[in-house]
Amino acid sequence: MKTVRQEGAVRFSISVPASLAKQLDRMATEKGYDNRSLAVADMVRAHLVEHHQQFGDKEIAGTITLLYDHHKQHVQAALTDIQHDHHEVIIAALHVHLDHDNCMEVLAVRGKAALIKRIADELIAAKGVKHGKLTVTSTGKDLAS
Amino acid sequence: MKTVRQEGAVRFSISVPASLAKQLDRMATEKGYDNRSLAVADMVRAHLVEHHQQFGDKEIAGTITLLYDHHKQHVQAALTDIQHDHHEVIIAALHVHLDHDNCMEVLAVRGKAALIKRIADELIAAKGVKHGKLTVTSTGKDLAS
Amino acid sequence: MKTVRQEGAVRFSISVPASLAKQLDRMATEKGYDNRSLAVADMVRAHLVEHHQQFGDKEIAGTITLLYDHHKQHVQAALTDIQHDHHEVIIAALHVHLDHDNCMEVLAVRGKAALIKRIADELIAAKGVKHGKLTVTSTGKDLAS
Amino acid sequence: MKTVRQEGAVRFSISVPASLAKQLDRMATEKGYDNRSLAVADMVRAHLVEHHQQFGDKEIAGTITLLYDHHKQHVQAALTDIQHDHHEVIIAALHVHLDHDNCMEVLAVRGKAALIKRIADELIAAKGVKHGKLTVTSTGKDLAS
Repeated sequence: MKTVRQEGAVRFSISVPASLAKQLDRMATEKGYDNRSLAVADMVRAHLVEHHQQFGDKEIAGTITLLYDHHKQHVQAALTDIQHDHHEVIIAALHVHLDHDNCMEVLAVRGKAALIKRIADELIAAKGVKHGKLTVTSTGKDLAS
Repeated sequence: MKTVRQEGAVRFSISVPASLAKQLDRMATEKGYDNRSLAVADMVRAHLVEHHQQFGDKEIAGTITLLYDHHKQHVQAALTDIQHDHHEVIIAALHVHLDHDNCMEVLAVRGKAALIKRIADELIAAKGVKHGKLTVTSTGKDLAS
Repeated sequence: MKTVRQEGAVRFSISVPASLAKQLDRMATEKGYDNRSLAVADMVRAHLVEHHQQFGDKEIAGTITLLYDHHKQHVQAALTDIQHDHHEVIIAALHVHLDHDNCMEVLAVRGKAALIKRIADELIAAKGVKHGKLTVTSTGKDLAS
Repeated sequence: MKTVRQEGAVRFSISVPASLAKQLDRMATEKGYDNRSLAVADMVRAHLVEHHQQFGDKEIAGTITLLYDHHKQHVQAALTDIQHDHHEVIIAALHVHLDHDNCMEVLAVRGKAALIKRIADELIAAKGVKHGKLTVTSTGKDLAS
């Protein structure tokens, strides 16, 4: 694992099965990366974000996406109640009226991983929510760019 | 990118920020990998699985979450250019200023799955984006509640 | 609402929350009005000017800002119903939880000016909305920069 | 100014020119109010909000609406820089892609009136911004509903 340092970047070599390397290169091209290094760096960051969210008291940022029919009795009132109980963690919500019935609501959140996981679970389990998803990213502080 | 073939494996070198390399090594150890190559190979495989998910011409709604340092040259201009090229698909973007440097931007999108996947790839691969994620939900029409 | 006519003036009674009446009186004093009636008359005139602004069939963009206590019965359901009736005009809504009770909701809108004015009036008049405001800008097309 | 208290509400009578009373009633009907009292209460609240924003250290909530052509050199970078300098005050920004060139950006803000006024001035004066507007509401705490 020899590493050659140059201007804040390090160069190191890795060994992977030949067919995997080929697939990696094709994917990097298809995704629009200029080179293999940039693609691998992004993958490493994505895995770091996932790895860090295991630790409950680590601060994360992220989104909670909720799909629901706003005509269903009390679903919106229930969601708003839960959100106001945690207004320190929920930065803002973006509400999109998909059609006459369906809403997509996206909450931007920031706080301890364990608390956010719990709020997401509560919102997604609320009666009337058709589909919900917690998407975790980092607050950016400890993610090298 | 000279590669030396040995027993079906290829060796190639990549260049990443020094601090990212350090975080990669720590994560690889915490996850129990014997070496960096095995860890990277597994990450590549995980991303291939996601990349090969079928995204057809079905209409979906969803979000694209992006984390970036807005000081990185041109990152924001690049992201906005991509978004305006597809303003029929991108309903609105919610921008949160996490701190002096880091932004979280959440795009509410709606359109053909394959197109949205392509836009998300382009945005996430953009130079300066630290982390990005496509979250897919339904438009709600064919999802009973 | 019996009214007693005297010298071109009419006297009528209105009913408002006690704390609001108190705030009205303090403001009337601070602004230098001799009595409550003169203050209210001026407010009515100011609102008439805004109300009579011409809103034609020109396409505009803008925002509708609403402040409400989400605990007030049905206010949120009512607002969402109005919004979904006009989901072609309302691009997205940004919802901010100001505290345990108060919400600020900002609707990004785009469409014919007269229709948007009508929707804003309906939302602002909805029971439970403490304060609302229509802010008009242009779609940018015919505004040189 | 005799006031009759009943269940948290007070009833008082005001005297205005006959023609103004008629115009008030027509406007209240056109805006969709159930009765004259509700219309007057909303006008009083609207004027309280405006009255309070004169006091620089009073906490307000509100929005800053900006219209700009994102192709204009550096406009977006400039706006983002200003926003990040004040990320404690700017809760979130909603960005709408009006067409290939024009963006409407709506910032939800909360803080001391004087500071918010200053930030709005700075953003609206930024080169490349075609139109901008500060819309002030209350944080809701001291506005009776």
